[in-house]
Amino acid sequence: MRRLTQQQPIRAVLVIFGGTGDLTSRKLIPALHNLKAKGALPEHFAVVGVGRRDLSDEGFRESLYPTLSRAVGENLRDDAWARLKERIVYRRFDFQDEQGYKGLRELLEQMDEAYQTGGNRIYYLAVAPEHFEVIVDKLQANGLVRNRDGWGWQRVVIEKPFGRDLTSARRLNQKITAIFTEANTFRIDHYLGKEMIQNIMVLRFANPLFEAVWNNKHIDNIQISATETVGVETRAGYYEQAGALRDMLQNHLLQLLTLTGMEPPVSLATEAVRDEKVKVLRALRALTPERMAADVVRAQYDRGRIEDRRVAAYREEKGISPTSTTDTFLALKLGIDNFRWAGVPFYIRTGKRLRAKSTDIIIQFKNLPQILYAKEHGALQPDILIIRIQPKEGVYFQFNAKKPGMDPGISPVKMDFCQNCDFESNSPEAYEKLLLDVMRGDSTLFTRWDEVEYSWKFVDQIAQAWGEEEKASSLTTYAAGTWGPAAANELLARDERDWWSVEG
Amino acid sequence: MRRLTQQQPIRAVLVIFGGTGDLTSRKLIPALHNLKAKGALPEHFAVVGVGRRDLSDEGFRESLYPTLSRAVGENLRDDAWARLKERIVYRRFDFQDEQGYKGLRELLEQMDEAYQTGGNRIYYLAVAPEHFEVIVDKLQANGLVRNRDGWGWQRVVIEKPFGRDLTSARRLNQKITAIFTEANTFRIDHYLGKEMIQNIMVLRFANPLFEAVWNNKHIDNIQISATETVGVETRAGYYEQAGALRDMLQNHLLQLLTLTGMEPPVSLATEAVRDEKVKVLRALRALTPERMAADVVRAQYDRGRIEDRRVAAYREEKGISPTSTTDTFLALKLGIDNFRWAGVPFYIRTGKRLRAKSTDIIIQFKNLPQILYAKEHGALQPDILIIRIQPKEGVYFQFNAKKPGMDPGISPVKMDFCQNCDFESNSPEAYEKLLLDVMRGDSTLFTRWDEVEYSWKFVDQIAQAWGEEEKASSLTTYAAGTWGPAAANELLARDERDWWSVEG
Repeated sequence: MRRLTQQQPIRAVLVIFGGTGDLTSRKLIPALHNLKAKGALPEHFAVVGVGRRDLSDEGFRESLYPTLSRAVGENLRDDAWARLKERIVYRRFDFQDEQGYKGLRELLEQMDEAYQTGGNRIYYLAVAPEHFEVIVDKLQANGLVRNRDGWGWQRVVIEKPFGRDLTSARRLNQKITAIFTEANTFRIDHYLGKEMIQNIMVLRFANPLFEAVWNNKHIDNIQISATETVGVETRAGYYEQAGALRDMLQNHLLQLLTLTGMEPPVSLATEAVRDEKVKVLRALRALTPERMAADVVRAQYDRGRIEDRRVAAYREEKGISPTSTTDTFLALKLGIDNFRWAGVPFYIRTGKRLRAKSTDIIIQFKNLPQILYAKEHGALQPDILIIRIQPKEGVYFQFNAKKPGMDPGISPVKMDFCQNCDFESNSPEAYEKLLLDVMRGDSTLFTRWDEVEYSWKFVDQIAQAWGEEEKASSLTTYAAGTWGPAAANELLARDERDWWSVEG
Repeated sequence: MRRLTQQQPIRAVLVIFGGTGDLTSRKLIPALHNLKAKGALPEHFAVVGVGRRDLSDEGFRESLYPTLSRAVGENLRDDAWARLKERIVYRRFDFQDEQGYKGLRELLEQMDEAYQTGGNRIYYLAVAPEHFEVIVDKLQANGLVRNRDGWGWQRVVIEKPFGRDLTSARRLNQKITAIFTEANTFRIDHYLGKEMIQNIMVLRFANPLFEAVWNNKHIDNIQISATETVGVETRAGYYEQAGALRDMLQNHLLQLLTLTGMEPPVSLATEAVRDEKVKVLRALRALTPERMAADVVRAQYDRGRIEDRRVAAYREEKGISPTSTTDTFLALKLGIDNFRWAGVPFYIRTGKRLRAKSTDIIIQFKNLPQILYAKEHGALQPDILIIRIQPKEGVYFQFNAKKPGMDPGISPVKMDFCQNCDFESNSPEAYEKLLLDVMRGDSTLFTRWDEVEYSWKFVDQIAQAWGEEEKASSLTTYAAGTWGPAAANELLARDERDWWSVEG
């Protein structure tokens, strides 16, 4: 969130490993197209796709177009695409193949001349995690990472998952940081590129009304909910290993938690913000075995209906074991043991094949003393502030007002600020923002190593509690199209609370 | 705001003195019509109009219809009016005439039998203030006020102005309370019947978020603004004597102030609420002569334009002296010297012939420390909460959010809860609510004597500072159709503040 200073024009070649993969065509190329259409892409810029399919430069460009046009829809600007695609080239080689890297090096040197990119390179690892280490090794071995004066900068962007536990994450990190500096290492979590996530800090630290009540004196509980209607889709291999725990909790949800819970940083500089986020992770209350049993619910979707369409159970999905014990749903009660949050439970919920797609942070305020209106009209609804992340982006506030008319009753009413309702195209895709930040070298919205480290420490407690036997016995199921298993409701009911679900 | 218990059906005859006047046809009859249409008017109920014009019962009813149909517009229900009007009769007599009262007494006794009203009467004094005393005197002298077991109850409703200063108000009050008890005396301030004014207490005491910040730790200043576009209209005689000071400040605006500033009452019972309102008036900081000069702005409208129409100066209006020094605009800075409000200025503004018609309570929150976003993006707009009284009814909240898109800036956005936007007819007219409250004997929304007393004490300080000479010298002017005189802006500019004007 550092202020942009554009005195120095940005120069760079973006090298995408996994150029023929889903992420490239569905996210990266559309983001580059949109930036180009807005005039936000630098002049001295070009793209190299690297993959194992046999394609010409033109063939590669053409292969990107159908997905691009679906992804950006009516915002497609053929002129922008024409200008972008002439700067896109393709190289075919296996990630193990030394010769491929040597050829890439020559190509990049030619491109430096053609586009005056000054040796600056972004290596985007849009590949399966097992390729991360080999690619960074070979990049270094073949002189593609120098980071020395006169040779420009070289940055690496790594998609999740960053490891599958603390041990593997540490190993991967050692490998990467032996080659790239921390400042040139961009661990991407695309959630952090979303408008309303960037807005959480603004809401908290630029508004006296919210700042005044953002603590355990005024807040009863906080719910962080990321629900999806889709199932496992085409990612069976990855998801069987990850589950909701590694796919959502370790990264996206703990990021939302840190932004919601962090103390005001000393400045908006990258490291100051990250310092505060890490402090939240460090203050997470440890999950003892007793608390694991009581406070963590894991479940897997069974058959059901999504919008009147019958859908299969997780175990029936293509590529999934019929005896799989992978969690597709997770609900947890967490505590942040610091002065601000002591006593305030954070309830986290995420799952696939649920009733609605929505990511929200829900702040439930403490009830007033049960006097005056509460005494006259019975228990009042609590005040609820909701930061809506997706698909709606905005802020929603529910409070109590007099019922209109002669009726002396009180009823909850709402106020709504919807950031993307009127101007949907105003909200840039997360990847637009994040790609630009990589070019600028601003890593505020990326995950620092110690954030990854502490989040794995937390998640490992849960994962390790689930040996093979416990993994089966702790798993419950829920019908697709519901809000998840009964146990998730009981988790809150036990505390005399309820999940808030904002529909629409 | 006491809960309604309807075990006992309401029985009463409503006697309107000033039956042929404006208030009766424009407000009271439309309110009765609406209540009838909603089925909210009791069965055992009838109306007597008393006036000096020579009209038959039928002629009186017919004379009310054109104004009624204009006033209620498309909500006119001819069946409701037919059922109401057959219960309306008319008596002509001069308010000094003993015989008239004797005749009225006989009529009411007949009506008690016809409508089973059990001796219950509401005497509504919709007349010029000089008639108040004589009417209550004659009512008593002719046995029309008894308030004894077996004779039902007799209540009096008194329109403003209740006196023109503390002395005359005290005299009037002594006269009235010698005849009617305080519980049967209803000093009407129709502002208190408005939906959003009843909502102020609900907003404050049924919402933890608002309750938490409703004090000098979080609030920078409060602005209470009641602006009109109309001029003096047909009320020249009254207005020349009253001015904005007596017409608006002494009653409506100080009422808004007390509801905004009061401590939580021990219960919602009438006397508990009134006790807290009075405490606010008692805590008003005295206006010393120095503070008068600095903190009170009075002005009168000059020629100008209202919505592209040329309008006359106040001194050119029909019935107004060409050398009049009456204030049609008033701006004040007040202080409430108690623990909750010490240090928070209350700015009050009211005037005729201003740019827009709007009554609003504007809560401006204290700025956050000028660090983080303020440091990066310059001074941020403050958070503003607005309780909108009329013509729009609702709550409006302006806060800071990230600008959408790549721009790192912050901009104010708003959330809006509009109570009367979708269902305009849902909001009953103030007089509907208040007439029903008189019938029920609920005086929560009426002004208790000590409220009147303390508000006159405060207003008298201002009035007495304006002898004839000062009245002329302290008066400034403003062009019709503006937001008032420059001095009103300077009043806030001196404190490095601004008036907030919500348009639309």
